[in-house]
Amino acid sequence: MSFFDYFRNKKGPNTASIAKERLQIIVAHERNTRGQPDYLPQLQQELLDVIRKYVAIQDDQVQVQLDKNDSCSVLELNVTLPDKV
Amino acid sequence: MSFFDYFRNKKGPNTASIAKERLQIIVAHERNTRGQPDYLPQLQQELLDVIRKYVAIQDDQVQVQLDKNDSCSVLELNVTLPDKV
Repeated sequence: MSFFDYFRNKKGPNTASIAKERLQIIVAHERNTRGQPDYLPQLQQELLDVIRKYVAIQDDQVQVQLDKNDSCSVLELNVTLPDKV
Repeated sequence: MSFFDYFRNKKGPNTASIAKERLQIIVAHERNTRGQPDYLPQLQQELLDVIRKYVAIQDDQVQVQLDKNDSCSVLELNVTLPDKV
């Protein structure tokens, strides 16, 4: 048992269930000309696939927001991970 | 300041002539406990590999910044793409 585990075990059950790990991914794409293809929507799934190599993410833990105007697109992924007990 | 503002402020008066396509990727990882493994450095290359499926990025077009403290790590990738003529 590591030093770290020692303190973790000292925590009560409520702490474990409330504490969260968060991951936020923001991709902003500024295009200088209009009408260029916007690949951010396709990127979304691929980025999640990369992250999943490191942490287990369920689809219902991910909030996705995509904003765009003429020249700029912003993709925002917010992931809330349950604390590992 | 929103991301839109950020990019807006970056534009100078000669926007049209020096227009560039920019891509910014920010990954923020908030860990609720200290000492957890930080996978952002490894993520960096994999994220670029995903982006490269959509746009040709040379290594010298990428600026990488990694900030971290006890509970939070932030990886920032700034890519400036040459304007397609």
